[in-house]
Amino acid sequence: MKRKIPLLAAGAVALVAALASHAGRIEDTAQQSGTRAKAAVRVEPIKPIVAPKVTNFAMVELGKQLFFDPRLSKSGVISCNSCHNLSMGGTDNLKASIGHGWTPGQLNAPTVLNSSLAIAQFWDGRADNLQQQAAGPIANPAEMNMSHELAVRTLETIPGYRESFWRVFREDRITLEQVTKAIAAFENTLVTPNSRFDRWLAGDNRALGEQELRGYKLFKASGCVACHNGPAAGGTSFQKLGLVEPYKGDTSIPGRAAVTGKDADRFKFKVPTLRNVELTYPYFHDGSAKTLAEAVEVMGKIQLGRTFSKDENDDIVAFLRTLTGDAPNFRLPQLPPSGPNTPEPTPFEVVKK
Amino acid sequence: MKRKIPLLAAGAVALVAALASHAGRIEDTAQQSGTRAKAAVRVEPIKPIVAPKVTNFAMVELGKQLFFDPRLSKSGVISCNSCHNLSMGGTDNLKASIGHGWTPGQLNAPTVLNSSLAIAQFWDGRADNLQQQAAGPIANPAEMNMSHELAVRTLETIPGYRESFWRVFREDRITLEQVTKAIAAFENTLVTPNSRFDRWLAGDNRALGEQELRGYKLFKASGCVACHNGPAAGGTSFQKLGLVEPYKGDTSIPGRAAVTGKDADRFKFKVPTLRNVELTYPYFHDGSAKTLAEAVEVMGKIQLGRTFSKDENDDIVAFLRTLTGDAPNFRLPQLPPSGPNTPEPTPFEVVKK
Repeated sequence: MKRKIPLLAAGAVALVAALASHAGRIEDTAQQSGTRAKAAVRVEPIKPIVAPKVTNFAMVELGKQLFFDPRLSKSGVISCNSCHNLSMGGTDNLKASIGHGWTPGQLNAPTVLNSSLAIAQFWDGRADNLQQQAAGPIANPAEMNMSHELAVRTLETIPGYRESFWRVFREDRITLEQVTKAIAAFENTLVTPNSRFDRWLAGDNRALGEQELRGYKLFKASGCVACHNGPAAGGTSFQKLGLVEPYKGDTSIPGRAAVTGKDADRFKFKVPTLRNVELTYPYFHDGSAKTLAEAVEVMGKIQLGRTFSKDENDDIVAFLRTLTGDAPNFRLPQLPPSGPNTPEPTPFEVVKK
Repeated sequence: MKRKIPLLAAGAVALVAALASHAGRIEDTAQQSGTRAKAAVRVEPIKPIVAPKVTNFAMVELGKQLFFDPRLSKSGVISCNSCHNLSMGGTDNLKASIGHGWTPGQLNAPTVLNSSLAIAQFWDGRADNLQQQAAGPIANPAEMNMSHELAVRTLETIPGYRESFWRVFREDRITLEQVTKAIAAFENTLVTPNSRFDRWLAGDNRALGEQELRGYKLFKASGCVACHNGPAAGGTSFQKLGLVEPYKGDTSIPGRAAVTGKDADRFKFKVPTLRNVELTYPYFHDGSAKTLAEAVEVMGKIQLGRTFSKDENDDIVAFLRTLTGDAPNFRLPQLPPSGPNTPEPTPFEVVKK
């Protein structure tokens, strides 16, 4: 099965040529592929999403299977896709996820979509990259609750996986590093290009309506872009939640300070991406904001010291909805069946402590 | 998105013409499509799977979304696909499924693949058809734990669903009947044609190896086909588990008797399909048999009073593995986002009794 890679609509290039004189400040930008023509883009603090160039399709396919495979959990029912559901904007739309044994999570599951564009992974940035991140939930007792050793041993007993891992890595044994590398390779493909905002960035003036443009201007003028910038409209820095006014909610968790050990980093979090934000409700690290309107209102107040009027809030929300891009588009993976020696899932096993 | 309908390999028709004189007893059989040429098939107690003719693509697409949508559960994390996982042979490969609040299920989740070919649904056949079945798990407190009223009300608050339901049903309100009808329409497409056994049935003598043919002959000669017959190699009758020797395991559940009220139906179950049986482990109503070898051994003993030798068991298992067909092949559905009035999932709500 080949993955269809969404690319910036080729038509946009021609369109840009026609509209260049009306398009405000534009410049030539090299595309990721050297063989493609250069496209003119608007220079804005939010940058276009560029589709990744997949070089190792076999690794991506393997990673996709692993991402959907609940056998990486002790119960046999929780997969990466359980909390980062690719049918639902790459998240689970819960305040906090539910883990092994119906354990309530502590934090809102960040979307996996465009997560490759962030400076680090997890709300506190404790993983440098997606490969590091992938190992975390597998072994977390409140999430998939599987030891890494058992996860790898399970995969080694599944004939189809032995074959795929061999094909991709050419090593005698399956290792955790291979597992997380393959998952990360798949996750790297989970970008969502071609949103209406991207088309506008590429020079298509008709891609945004008046209200949406007004919202974007206000978003910039109010200072939202100070943190929500770059291709992911976020994910580029850690910021204290409640810069101007204190956050109304549980402020007891350490946030970034848990990683750095610095008191100055207390209650700092990685700025979440705003890409596909209309799909990734509820909002904030604790999922306390149910709607975009509520999230915009709270952000204005506690981060910028600003109260948006109803119309202003509506405008910003209208702009935010233009950040929904093309969802990853692939066939539901088929998982290789377990072998005779595959350890059975043990969802109800009581561990003696 | 159009669903690609797998059809009996067109090439098989030509092949059959070439091999007809070697193919044993064959006859002409009308295909489901009047416009297609007639194909010659072997007449056997296990019949070929014929791909369904989809007439209402919009309804199937809607049903596919609903099948994958965890918002049909109170927790917001359990969908039809959780227990009937279409990446894993249409089941969850657990002895018994895990429901709301991590509640252990009582019975092994039957595969949804080819379930449209069965005379009734559930192990005890208490639902006449897939549409009736679909309503059950949604409201079962130990499964999705959602009232039907809340499920329908939730869907009504989701703009994308309102639009899709209107397009498909043209009625003012979304109803449970529409929901289950759409899910059943999708499930009707979940057949798995084109297994090696089907190709052999169609006249391709090279489709089965010697051991597999030997296994099939023994399967017939031993009487397995008395129950495992028809296009699904099962699903055509209710049978007492432990006809010759008593079943070693919990025999306290009523089985079919719960539906008919007849004592003669105690511990009778719907004969499960053997299609894709290598993917649908563990086996039996309680998932007590981990491997095909074990299942074949137990069935031989307690249903047929026969002890298969190691070689015989191997042969039958080899045959059973030829019943794996083409998995349903479709793109991961994207679900419409919730609206501002969509009830939030309440995974941890304590209900006062």
